[in-house]
Amino acid sequence: MSTWEPEDVDVVIPTIRNLDFLENWRGVLERCHIIVVQDGDPGRRLQVPDGFDCQVFNRRDIERVLADRAWCISYRDSACRCFGWLVSRKRYIYTLDDDCFLPGPPHVSKDVSSPLARHMSNLLTPATPHYFNTLYDPFRDGADFVRGYPFSLRDGVPTAISHGLWLNVPDYDAPTQLAKPLERNRRYVDAVMTVPRGSLFPMCGMNLAFDRQLIGPAMYFGLMGEGQPIGRYDDMWAGWCTKVICDHLGYGVKTGLPYVWHSKASNPYANLKKEYKGVFWQEKVVPFFENVSLTKGGTDAQACYLELAAQVRTSLACVDPYFQKLAE
Amino acid sequence: MSTWEPEDVDVVIPTIRNLDFLENWRGVLERCHIIVVQDGDPGRRLQVPDGFDCQVFNRRDIERVLADRAWCISYRDSACRCFGWLVSRKRYIYTLDDDCFLPGPPHVSKDVSSPLARHMSNLLTPATPHYFNTLYDPFRDGADFVRGYPFSLRDGVPTAISHGLWLNVPDYDAPTQLAKPLERNRRYVDAVMTVPRGSLFPMCGMNLAFDRQLIGPAMYFGLMGEGQPIGRYDDMWAGWCTKVICDHLGYGVKTGLPYVWHSKASNPYANLKKEYKGVFWQEKVVPFFENVSLTKGGTDAQACYLELAAQVRTSLACVDPYFQKLAE
Repeated sequence: MSTWEPEDVDVVIPTIRNLDFLENWRGVLERCHIIVVQDGDPGRRLQVPDGFDCQVFNRRDIERVLADRAWCISYRDSACRCFGWLVSRKRYIYTLDDDCFLPGPPHVSKDVSSPLARHMSNLLTPATPHYFNTLYDPFRDGADFVRGYPFSLRDGVPTAISHGLWLNVPDYDAPTQLAKPLERNRRYVDAVMTVPRGSLFPMCGMNLAFDRQLIGPAMYFGLMGEGQPIGRYDDMWAGWCTKVICDHLGYGVKTGLPYVWHSKASNPYANLKKEYKGVFWQEKVVPFFENVSLTKGGTDAQACYLELAAQVRTSLACVDPYFQKLAE
Repeated sequence: MSTWEPEDVDVVIPTIRNLDFLENWRGVLERCHIIVVQDGDPGRRLQVPDGFDCQVFNRRDIERVLADRAWCISYRDSACRCFGWLVSRKRYIYTLDDDCFLPGPPHVSKDVSSPLARHMSNLLTPATPHYFNTLYDPFRDGADFVRGYPFSLRDGVPTAISHGLWLNVPDYDAPTQLAKPLERNRRYVDAVMTVPRGSLFPMCGMNLAFDRQLIGPAMYFGLMGEGQPIGRYDDMWAGWCTKVICDHLGYGVKTGLPYVWHSKASNPYANLKKEYKGVFWQEKVVPFFENVSLTKGGTDAQACYLELAAQVRTSLACVDPYFQKLAE
């Protein structure tokens, strides 16, 4: 496996609060460069704990950098995080929510590496989207390809995305939150796996790493939050787009470890309001992404993304005019 | 979830040894009907531990029951197990190798149910092949569908196959066994998941349960062992056929829990000899199954299997004349 240094990664954190939670991450993130995208009122001064290399961008910075294109970065929604990878010059991005903590015992002892180290090892080892390995990630220590796995597929493909999970508060939609207010995720599943080619998955931005060089241009979190008819579908949208493009370009997407400890359940009533249209739209949008096909011409994420945007415009504008604006 | 009784299941065990290992399974299997397919010399008398409801079939029985079609049941190969579901009249089959034991502590305490109970709960709850759920099986206690999972897909589909895994000796092919003679699987992954639609997987017959009514006619373990050019691909062959048919009929295949403790590593040199041709053939056979398409007419496993056999004859006979005989 290739090695990596903290200098290879930008950590991107969107926040409307303060950054006290970084104290919990000190051992893991203090050698990394951190890009904070401060959402909401740019006049509010953000407290950063001592000893972290944090660069803070607020709405005024976004408008200064992007000028008349600043509208494409969402406001009052964690989708604003994608501004972080626009200004990053590093190959790898790790993005994290400000209510996520390192998993405590007993889970921390099971996975000796930090979440960042696990994401990096997911990204730096191949993925296996073409055939399912029943013992999970064959590139982890103590694992391999099982009997019946074609040898020609054992090289795998480059990994573009590493999707981490959450203990404690699971990433449920508003209806499920309302139906199961007390459900907590206590199941630590000690596995990393490749999402097979041709399968879509719900990508959550809470604990996510990716290779900016391979998939960066497609990792756009859409238009959410203030002034938009929808929220909380930013990461899902990016997940559908990037998965289709990874499948097309022959890159892999892994999910599973590392876990973070997700501390706060967001308000299900507020969430329902944000998600309301998404609940209907996703029934049209998921089949669109399942059936979309990209031409052979698209050989990098940027070309594929432009092609996909054109197809969104023609195929989804009928669902809602919002998709026309999104396609821009 | 529907309930089940031990009377709903036939346990099928192929063996060339004795059945002492059943002592370890007493609490789990003593209320079940067990079909033992005795491979090798039919003259040898098989010892069955007291208190088990075992029905033993040897080669003479197979020839008596199937007469001039007895050639389709493999001899001197665990593929002979499929005779067990031919004579079964139960809806569910659990098939198990005679070198597999109940996982001991600490794993037994994690999964409170027995392997059989876990297989049955896998089979009696829906599967979700159409979209990937990042928190694994949404029908397990304490789990659900995550945000971004389309509501129209949450009913799932009926589960036809439950594929269990193995602690200790992993199911590796001969080359991997030779390269890693000491590797043992110590990772207990507390997850059950659906193999997504369109993905093939290496199905191992060591610890496998299925719904005979849904998929029985397609669960044929091929021609292996004595007189055949190939061994150790029996379960793989059945896995490819059944997965393609499950995808076509809208049934699900789950993999993960339950684990068994697999005690013996088989001889890698003997395995290499059996697998030798399979290593080459699988490179042609897997793409065949990936691209095969069944007509809408096939509405049950039997019709689909006949159609698949015809396609095997036309598409794979060129790989080796063996496939012509297999197609019969």
